[in-house]
This record gives sequence, structure tokens and C-alpha cells, in this order.
Amino acid sequence: MCRWLAYSGSPIALETVLLEPEHSLIDQSLHSRMGVETTNGDGFGVGWYGDGPKPCIYRSMNPAWNDQNLRELAAHIKSPLFLAHIRASTGTAVQQTNCHPFRHDRWLWMHNGSIRNFAVVKRDLVLAVDPSLFSSIAGSTDSELMFYLALSLGLNDDPVAAVERMAGLIEKTAERHGIANPLQMSLATTNGERLWVFRYSTERQSRSLYCSTHFRTLRELYPDNPRIASVSEETRLVVSEPLVDLPGAWNEIPESHCGIVQAGQDELLPFQPRR
Amino acid sequence: MCRWLAYSGSPIALETVLLEPEHSLIDQSLHSRMGVETTNGDGFGVGWYGDGPKPCIYRSMNPAWNDQNLRELAAHIKSPLFLAHIRASTGTAVQQTNCHPFRHDRWLWMHNGSIRNFAVVKRDLVLAVDPSLFSSIAGSTDSELMFYLALSLGLNDDPVAAVERMAGLIEKTAERHGIANPLQMSLATTNGERLWVFRYSTERQSRSLYCSTHFRTLRELYPDNPRIASVSEETRLVVSEPLVDLPGAWNEIPESHCGIVQAGQDELLPFQPRR
Amino acid sequence: MCRWLAYSGSPIALETVLLEPEHSLIDQSLHSRMGVETTNGDGFGVGWYGDGPKPCIYRSMNPAWNDQNLRELAAHIKSPLFLAHIRASTGTAVQQTNCHPFRHDRWLWMHNGSIRNFAVVKRDLVLAVDPSLFSSIAGSTDSELMFYLALSLGLNDDPVAAVERMAGLIEKTAERHGIANPLQMSLATTNGERLWVFRYSTERQSRSLYCSTHFRTLRELYPDNPRIASVSEETRLVVSEPLVDLPGAWNEIPESHCGIVQAGQDELLPFQPRR
Amino acid sequence: MCRWLAYSGSPIALETVLLEPEHSLIDQSLHSRMGVETTNGDGFGVGWYGDGPKPCIYRSMNPAWNDQNLRELAAHIKSPLFLAHIRASTGTAVQQTNCHPFRHDRWLWMHNGSIRNFAVVKRDLVLAVDPSLFSSIAGSTDSELMFYLALSLGLNDDPVAAVERMAGLIEKTAERHGIANPLQMSLATTNGERLWVFRYSTERQSRSLYCSTHFRTLRELYPDNPRIASVSEETRLVVSEPLVDLPGAWNEIPESHCGIVQAGQDELLPFQPRR
Repeated sequence: MCRWLAYSGSPIALETVLLEPEHSLIDQSLHSRMGVETTNGDGFGVGWYGDGPKPCIYRSMNPAWNDQNLRELAAHIKSPLFLAHIRASTGTAVQQTNCHPFRHDRWLWMHNGSIRNFAVVKRDLVLAVDPSLFSSIAGSTDSELMFYLALSLGLNDDPVAAVERMAGLIEKTAERHGIANPLQMSLATTNGERLWVFRYSTERQSRSLYCSTHFRTLRELYPDNPRIASVSEETRLVVSEPLVDLPGAWNEIPESHCGIVQAGQDELLPFQPRR
Repeated sequence: MCRWLAYSGSPIALETVLLEPEHSLIDQSLHSRMGVETTNGDGFGVGWYGDGPKPCIYRSMNPAWNDQNLRELAAHIKSPLFLAHIRASTGTAVQQTNCHPFRHDRWLWMHNGSIRNFAVVKRDLVLAVDPSLFSSIAGSTDSELMFYLALSLGLNDDPVAAVERMAGLIEKTAERHGIANPLQMSLATTNGERLWVFRYSTERQSRSLYCSTHFRTLRELYPDNPRIASVSEETRLVVSEPLVDLPGAWNEIPESHCGIVQAGQDELLPFQPRR
Repeated sequence: MCRWLAYSGSPIALETVLLEPEHSLIDQSLHSRMGVETTNGDGFGVGWYGDGPKPCIYRSMNPAWNDQNLRELAAHIKSPLFLAHIRASTGTAVQQTNCHPFRHDRWLWMHNGSIRNFAVVKRDLVLAVDPSLFSSIAGSTDSELMFYLALSLGLNDDPVAAVERMAGLIEKTAERHGIANPLQMSLATTNGERLWVFRYSTERQSRSLYCSTHFRTLRELYPDNPRIASVSEETRLVVSEPLVDLPGAWNEIPESHCGIVQAGQDELLPFQPRR
Repeated sequence: MCRWLAYSGSPIALETVLLEPEHSLIDQSLHSRMGVETTNGDGFGVGWYGDGPKPCIYRSMNPAWNDQNLRELAAHIKSPLFLAHIRASTGTAVQQTNCHPFRHDRWLWMHNGSIRNFAVVKRDLVLAVDPSLFSSIAGSTDSELMFYLALSLGLNDDPVAAVERMAGLIEKTAERHGIANPLQMSLATTNGERLWVFRYSTERQSRSLYCSTHFRTLRELYPDNPRIASVSEETRLVVSEPLVDLPGAWNEIPESHCGIVQAGQDELLPFQPRR
């Protein structure tokens, strides 16, 4: 499986969350505490929004912990909205086109989890991708295919409904092939304006997913913490596992739920696959 | 496009043909004289047969000229039958799963050329792959897809007919999408016992392909050449472009033909796509 | 050998000079017209200055033409001062630590050329590096060693004198070992404020090096050229070979000269190794 | 630190010990049980002897667990004598020239451990390398430098004495710089005929090192074990940590000792740095 992190808020240098915290994402590439695998060394990626509407992505087959370019870029690049992912392959090749986040136009997408017996259902799922999007699929992972299914099923217009349809389609397809508990996913997607995160699995035992406490509350709890003081109240982090051991700082996203990070009030909605 | 080389004959160290000749394949990676591109630096691969029926493959994203492991292996590994390929990408990603030769069971396959407007016809062609083979497709190239089409269309039983059917299917599919002159291919495939090579393009202006003169003749022509003396009369090389400038040593494989290198008499047959 | 480019002026997206011109540096990685080698595919690097005093570097072993991350970064990163380099190894390993530009504190350094019979003089030259700098040498190239020699000989205080001392030391050392014409260099170095470029070789037949014409003159010559109109008059490019075929746009830096690009009037000085 | 394995005995496919055992070296790259680090993912290497006197090496920056070429080669290559190493960098760059085993002529060398405060003593140690060997140093690790020191101090003539001199030199140099407990090493070297392994640290708390029990004894202990039955009685494995949990199969090499695996009786000698 994998580990990931999504940041939305005051523009910060990427290293602030990728490298500096005690259990930063880079640290998790070697020493994940809550992942299925301790090591997440099969490549990584970062996608961030800058001046234009389209995000920039830097992805590499190297383990995140020993990639010098990542350290360089993380120290120099600032962004108000970025996704970062470290990969532990569940079988597909370690190559740049299989590294998350995936991008299509202004959308980014990253995933922790898998489709069980992917080889069995892959063909049916590939056929369900909109023909106009088909040739944009560059890699071979279940995660990227889920992205293109969601795009085919309306991600642009209604992201929550599109992901619910995608999950329903995968479950229905797997059912036809006699595969139990086919879907395991904690995923994040963004169009550069809002961030949607999902925690779901068919068996209702989903991978861990945490959201940072509202920063107004955190400032009251930790008035002397300079990192907390340095960012706006609108700042929000969603992570596979906590970056620091700070009581009260992290809230588990409930099983089968979707969170929306946006200007104004964030939202938390129940998630239900649609057939 | 690309350059390739196929060797069948007395077991030799791979470097004998990959590195040592004046215009060796490694030299062609920097200085191709007859290719569409001078540089073929988007990865490479070698596949060879040893003790078992299944060949070994070594493939890398690095340019062949600067890959130290290739030099090591080419100096130490001997084989009676091997394929080697240097790649110049026509757009698909530079990654190991896109490097030739491709392997399925005991078969190897490599290709120079392309399917025009591949993005347009890719989905239809992917659907024509036998569902049982579908999930074995690991990369994103037209060349690998051609391999899986040929496997789906009978490569195991009748290689020439299968490749003719594959070419016919591609041309028919392209025609449906209004693509003229869709197929350009010089390709080689082997099951570890026989070697089939093909030179064909829809427009009948195919990439260069040469076959070595029978070594009995070469020995008469060059009685003092130690390299020629060192290998058996059954030895045969098929190459995108000549490895050495030796008058009488190379014969162009005619347009729209297929050659079969095998124990006993080799064969040269006309090639005709089958619809 | 190698090819390189240095830019100083209005902040621009790196791709404006790395990718977009007809004979851009990326194009030169495949099709250099004036280099010793047509192909410069043994890695590359870019170093740029942003908010802080220390530059950021992105370096890779991949050929520049097929590195997806370079395209991403070049489209999104803007800088008023950057160096870019594509490498054709003269023997040392293709690895990130051998890619230019090299960095020490706020300095960047890149080089096209070589020290002849480097293996013979390397030990003596390594011993001449200041012991406090010794363990900062990360790679194995002559180019990086030249940087550490220049740093040892006063680059911080008087860059021109330091490079003249470095050249003198190399020539004296080579002479002691009986090596004729030991030094060939076109090099660039910057501290983030000024840019120094050098064209020199012991035999006085140095690699090509061009400097852009003053942009005020270029605007008069090409009043309708939007690229020329878009940057300030202070903008200056120094390149191994011209990026576009624009009469009057490029001036050869004379043999054995040093150029200084800086606020106010730029300078051109004769260059003379110091023993 | 790192993990390694040395094999001497009946020619076997490399995968027999690199991949197949429960705690194979590849498994240790992800899940080392006795190493300083759980993950050894900073590159790897294999060196083996074949027909000629000079060994072949295959080294890669990739983690061993996800390198497809390693799986291919390990399944197809057989050898009676090989070394394999997985790396966890202690700071120096992850690059091929820093991967073990290192080779010089017919010698191979690999190391687990480190020289403490290497940056402080590196210059003095580099100066102690024989000038004729100096330019053969290709990487930047303490391990490779130890190899060139041993070569400079007589490895060809008397390997045990040379390594004792090397250890003495490192300790004396470190002492001069006020560094306590400078040397930590479990190392292996071979000339293709004999294999020397060393376990030593200045503080006498050396990394784990195990030697397989004599195979005659193992056959009596495990008469039904096909793997044990398949190799000759002369077969010997030396490993950083046991490959299988088989009571009686592994013996710890004692602190400050050297083992010699050779035709006839193997030897175990006390090891003492020489000043």
C-alpha cells in the first residue's frame, strides 16, 4: 500500500510538512507506523498548484528518502495546495507513470489501497473508461484507472457522485467475477480550488486517514507553537497517519466518509457507492 | 524509431556483436547511419536463451552507450540465440516496461517502426487482445500491443500467419478511423528454436533490414577473418543496419518479406497482411 | 564534451530558453550543431536562484530530452538567474553527483571542456584543494574539481583571479607530468548576483561560446519580436551555441576572455592563467 | 549500514540464496531483523565468477526488492563463487559507483559498517592510497576507500595482513583526529579462488556475521532437506544474518576474527589491526 498527505492553506515551503515533522512523509517512506508495509520505497510524487490553473508534478521511481532532487525542490517551492504520495507497489511496475499523484487537466488524484484481483477485472474496467480519455492512461496501476473511471463518470461536475459511481462500478464488476471485498481506498483529489478526500472499503475496514483539527482550535491548545502560529486558520492537512504526536491535533476521518476542504466551512459527508 | 539486432548461431559472448564491431548496436545508439533518428537513447534491452526454455531479459531506461551493467553482462554472457534493441521513443514513456524485447513464455518480440496515430486506434486494438492475455500487457507501446495481438491471433501455432493477421487487423482498424499508411514495421520474434523476421509497411517503404550472407560464403570471401572463422556455418545475423562495412556480407531483406532462420535451410517468404 | 546556457535578466519561466527556441538546450541534447559530440545525453542539470540567497538545483542522469520532470519544472519555475547544462561524459560515470551545475553555498559552477589525461594529474590536483573543502567534493569529474580548486584559490573574493590561478595550477601540474595542451574550458560561475563566464584553452582553440547582443539593440533590430519585447534591457544570455538563428543576436566571446554580467555595464576582460 | 552474503561451493543459480530462502537477502532489503536499519534500499550489487578470472558485476541504485533485472539475472546465472550486497547509505550518495561489491582486477570487496566521522579523516586516508591506484577510485564511500587502502597495503600478497594494516591505519588516523571507536566492519573479499571474511570493530561490538555449518554435518542433521542435499560438502555461506531459521545451520563468526574459505580445510584466525 502507500501513504499520502494533502495540504491546503497558507502557502508554505513543501519541506515544512514533507520533511521537517518527526513523522514526516519522508520518514514514513522508511518507517510507516500505521501502514500495511513499514517501507514505502517504490517511488513517490508531489503535485502542487502555483500561478497557473494547471498543477506541476514531480514524480520519481527512487525511494523518497534518498532522492536529492526532492529535498532541493521541497526547500524552494511554496504552494497553498499540494498532494504528496509515497508508494509501496502491490505488484505493478515501479515506474514514473505509476507514481501518484496522477494529473488530468487541472485535476490531481492519489490513492492508498487497491482493487483486489485487479488482473481479473482490469479489462472490464478499462472498457468502462470514456473512449476519449482512454489513450491518456499512461501507467498500469489500479489507482490511475480509478482516476480515469471517475473522470468518465463525472468528476468535473460532481466529484462526490463520480467517486461513488466509480466505487459502485468496481464493486459490481468484481461481484460479477466472484471477488469479495474488492475495493480498499483512501483517496484524495483536487481541481486546484477544493480538495476531496475519501475513506472507504467494501469490507468497511478502511486504511487509516486523519484530518488536522481546525487551526483556530490548535492555536488555543498550543499558543506557543510557532508552526501552528505561522499559518492561516483556513489551513487543513489530511494524512494517512499523523505527522507529529500532538494530542488533539488529529481527527480520524470516519469509515465510509468523504471530506471536502474548501473556502469557508469544510464538509464531512457519508460515502455510499452507487450502482 | 529504433535499431535492433538478432543473432542465431554458435554461442558467442554478447559483446562480440553488441560492442565490438565498428558500427555495433551500441555505436548505433549514438550514431545511427540509416535510422530515422541519429540517436537511439531512450532505453534498450537484450533477451537471450541459455539453459532453460525461457529466455532471460535485461532491459534498462538508460541509453545503451552509458549503461555499465550492459558492458559487464555483454562480456560475460554467451548465448546461441539473442535479440538486442535500442529505442528512440515515438512518444510513449521511457520506462523499463516499454523496452524491447518483450517476452511471453518462451517468446521474445522486438520492433522498429510504429502504428500511426496510435492514440486513435489504441482502444480498438487493445479490445482485440485475447482477454486471457490482456492483463499481461505491462507497458504502453504500440510494439508490445502488436506482440499481444500476434499472440492472440496464433503466434504459437503459425507465426507467419499470426503476424499477417496482426498487420491486417491494424490496417483494417486504421482504415475505419481514416488513417492512411498506418503500419511501419521491421520486427523479429523467436520461440527459442526458430527466428522470424519481418520487413513491411503499408506504404511499401519499410525501414532498412539486413541479413548476413551465409557464413560458408563469407569464409570463402574472407578466409583470414578470425571472427568469421570462429563461428559455425549455421550462424546468421539480422540487423537494422550493417555492423561492419564488409562488401558482400549483408543482404537487404526485400520489401514485404519474412525471413525464417532455423536449423537446415533458412527461408524467405513474401509477406501479405491478412484481413 | 557538453553544452550549457546561462541566463540573467527579467524573471522568466525556464522553458522559455530551455525548451521553446528552435535550437534550445533540450534540442542540443539530441542535435548539437557546434559541439564535439552531436548527442549530449549523459545527464543534465539546472540551477536557479529564487527567494533565498542559496540556489536550488535539479540534476538527473537521464538524457534531458526525455526527462518528464524537467519539462514540468521548466514550465512552472521562474527565475531571474539560472544556469543549465547538458552533459556528454568524457569518461567519468554518469551519475547525479557528476551533473553540472555544481553548488557550494551560494555559488554555482558549470563547465564544458576537460583536463587532458585527467587520471594522471587528478591526485596532485585533489591535494591542492583546501582541506576544509575536501570532503565536499561529491563526484568524480574534472569539472567539479576545477570548482573546488577555484574556491580554494579565492573564488569568493576575486573570481577572475581565482579562475586564472586555477588554470595556471592545472597547466603547471600538467606540464610537470609532460601533458601538452591540458586545459579546455568554457565555464560559467555565479554567486547569485553577478555571472562570470570564461572561454579559454591552453592551445587557444577553445570551444564555442556566445553572448546575446544587448537587448536594447535587439529591440531596435527586431521591434516585432514578442520574446525580445518581453524582457528587460538588462537581460543577457550566454550559450555554447546560438538558440535561434537570428542575425545580429549573438556575439562570439573572444578566445581567452572573461565576461562579467552584472547590474549596470557588463564587462569583457582578457583571461590569462596565473602561475 | 548494510547486509551481505558470500557464497562459495557448487555452482548454483544466484536466486537459490538471493531470493528463495525465507529471510533471503532480497527479503532483508525490506525486513532486516538484525541490521542497524530495517530497510536496506539504497542500491545493491552482485559480483560473480564465471569462465574467466575476472568477475562480472551487476550493480544498481534501485532497491533490490523492486529491481526486475536482478530477478531475471538471478534466475539465469549460475556461479560457484559470488558476493551480494544490499546498501543502507550512511550519508554518501546513492549511485552505482557507491554500490558494493567493488572490483579491482580479479578482486571483489564488500563491506558492512563505517568509518566514524569519515569526512574528517577522508583526506588523510585518500593520501595513503598508492598513487598508481588513486584514479581507479570511482565512488565516494568509506567502503571503497578501505578496499583501495587494502590493495595499497598488500591485499594481493597477504590479504589478512593487508586488512590488518588497513584497520591499523584507519585507527591511527582517527586517533590523530581525536575520533573514538572509528572502525566498524564486517567485510568480505575474494580473488576468485579463496574467500576472506572479517568481523571487527574498534569497540569490539561488531555487526553480526554468520557462517554456515559444514555441509557434511548439515546433511546428517537434515537428511531430507533437498537444498542441502543438492550442493557439495565444500559449500559455504557467510551472511550478515541467517537466511533460514534452521537450528544448527549457522555459527556466529567470533568478534575480531577472520575466516578463510578455501579448497580443503577452511580457517578461522584472530584479527588484530597492525599499526
